[in-house]
Amino acid sequence: MTPQLGRVAIIGATGAVGREALSILESRGHRARDLVAIASARSAGMAIPYAGENLVVRALTEESFASVDIALLCASAGVSREHAPIALANHMLVVDNSSAFRAHPDVPLVVPEINPEAVTPETRLIANPNCTTIILLVALNPLRRTFGIERIVVSTYQAVSGAGAAAMDELREQSGATLNGEPLVPRVFREPCGFNVFSHNSAVDINTGVNGEEQKVIDEARKIWSDPTLSVTPTCVRVPVFRAHLESVTLTLSEPASEAEVRKALSNAPGLRVVDDRTANAFPTTLSATSQDDVLVGRIRPDPAANDRNGPRTRSWCLLVAGDQIRKGAALNAIQCADLLVARRAGGGDRVLMGSHRN
Amino acid sequence: MTPQLGRVAIIGATGAVGREALSILESRGHRARDLVAIASARSAGMAIPYAGENLVVRALTEESFASVDIALLCASAGVSREHAPIALANHMLVVDNSSAFRAHPDVPLVVPEINPEAVTPETRLIANPNCTTIILLVALNPLRRTFGIERIVVSTYQAVSGAGAAAMDELREQSGATLNGEPLVPRVFREPCGFNVFSHNSAVDINTGVNGEEQKVIDEARKIWSDPTLSVTPTCVRVPVFRAHLESVTLTLSEPASEAEVRKALSNAPGLRVVDDRTANAFPTTLSATSQDDVLVGRIRPDPAANDRNGPRTRSWCLLVAGDQIRKGAALNAIQCADLLVARRAGGGDRVLMGSHRN
Repeated sequence: MTPQLGRVAIIGATGAVGREALSILESRGHRARDLVAIASARSAGMAIPYAGENLVVRALTEESFASVDIALLCASAGVSREHAPIALANHMLVVDNSSAFRAHPDVPLVVPEINPEAVTPETRLIANPNCTTIILLVALNPLRRTFGIERIVVSTYQAVSGAGAAAMDELREQSGATLNGEPLVPRVFREPCGFNVFSHNSAVDINTGVNGEEQKVIDEARKIWSDPTLSVTPTCVRVPVFRAHLESVTLTLSEPASEAEVRKALSNAPGLRVVDDRTANAFPTTLSATSQDDVLVGRIRPDPAANDRNGPRTRSWCLLVAGDQIRKGAALNAIQCADLLVARRAGGGDRVLMGSHRN
Repeated sequence: MTPQLGRVAIIGATGAVGREALSILESRGHRARDLVAIASARSAGMAIPYAGENLVVRALTEESFASVDIALLCASAGVSREHAPIALANHMLVVDNSSAFRAHPDVPLVVPEINPEAVTPETRLIANPNCTTIILLVALNPLRRTFGIERIVVSTYQAVSGAGAAAMDELREQSGATLNGEPLVPRVFREPCGFNVFSHNSAVDINTGVNGEEQKVIDEARKIWSDPTLSVTPTCVRVPVFRAHLESVTLTLSEPASEAEVRKALSNAPGLRVVDDRTANAFPTTLSATSQDDVLVGRIRPDPAANDRNGPRTRSWCLLVAGDQIRKGAALNAIQCADLLVARRAGGGDRVLMGSHRN
């Protein structure tokens, strides 16, 4: 049963994640009068259609949180650092979609399918993980639970939507320009994004060579799984698609497993759907993951180079994973976290995530 | 110095690779009267502009090879299996761009920068490797030569051009349809290719889960490097770009190396260019590799999870590699192989590849 969230404020309501959060709340019947749509001053007064009514966007001020129960922060880390403390001081529950508090030792970083126990009746602020991390961990968590995971090598194929609605506009514009033989004008990304593949646009550490997105995957996987020495080798790359990420994973389990055992573990996991038809060549794609709640997993196969084969068992496996970056990678996970916060305060919660959006 | 190739027949002259081969020969001054453009019967009579003249396309027949010195087979494996023996019987030298003879123990599989010694004065047929393999091995060969390579994990971001000119048309059409809100009509690929990322379209082995493209990378890397037990774990994926591949590589060297040593090895390698500016976030992209002879390598960094660190030395490294699939991945490598065949018969050859196209 979906918990009653009370009165919800969406901060960043006009952005890609904010709009998706509104769409999810609308589909589960959350009433317009229990919503406050908040954005920057330049969007104030804009009307967002919602459940047959219009939500009028308000500018973010210190008064934004009056008579609100839950704040979903869907704006920048700077906005979160400034306004999350204000929301908490106003006795609200807060789910922050930015990176502002993810590394904070007192703030749980939560994927409800994975670590709901990190949320206690006292928790009032949850950090929503990075999209790439959420999608990866939803797919790998059942394997970790059943066999343990020792090492992850992952290369990502990331949609431009992770850089916001303006990046999606840029992909649309540059693709049209390319098809028409017109020059490209990069604004959001340094590199042209139309018909191009390039290393993730986050800053690269001058000493380690690791970029910001990759460091998030490493740090957040370790925190969510409470495994500070987990071996993760990510390479994060942008591809010219609109809103879902694909991830190519080669992983080493702690215990050897047969293919049947791996498939069984993946088939029974919450929020995850196996798409794997070798004969038809049908596997997860970014388009088929788009606008889906579930993360998709497929190309399930033993590493062809595995040197620990013991009959059908090995520790080394390959997978493709795909998930909607805006939905489960951001807005849906944030709303599931809000559900969990509310349920915990009511004395329940570990099961709240099971189809919380679907019932 | 570019060897004189004599009279060259391009079989498949109207396809993506055949046209690229003509463009390369034109740029190095090969005369129109020393060229025979051959294609299927339905293209016969078509005129291809070349060096201010028109090459008239001829249908492929048993007489196609009269008074020709070298045949570049740029069509299907079926065409190669039928016509390579005829060309050889007509005393021609043959470079076959298809997969027909790559696994044959008596046919050298050659990347001239890597294994020119596989070609002897007696060699009359060379198999040109798969594009993904060529691009990967040009980048990794200097590391293998200096430190040895024990294990390669590679995820590819492959242009649609690998499936031919029709696939490039499909990407163009489907991208336009998506931008205009029109329905997509897949023809070449099972999955939509416009704004989508999907597992490589080659057939998947029902038992191993490995697809045809991945098996080629494994088998061909082992043959080119004469290392039948090399550990290679490829995942091959299509991305919506026109004609260059990107590859994300995590590799284990045989000997530990420092970053300076790795960079030095990569900087001095033929056919390879380092593009790696952490401050500017400038690394190889598919667009920057397009129409380039060189393979690009960058994001050179020690694996952040390397557990064998010994001061600055480790065996585990990450790289991004990009290369033009039609050019160095096919047509250019084939012409360099032809150069090598001719030079070997003249008693030389190992140095022929150094800028053979550029001088």
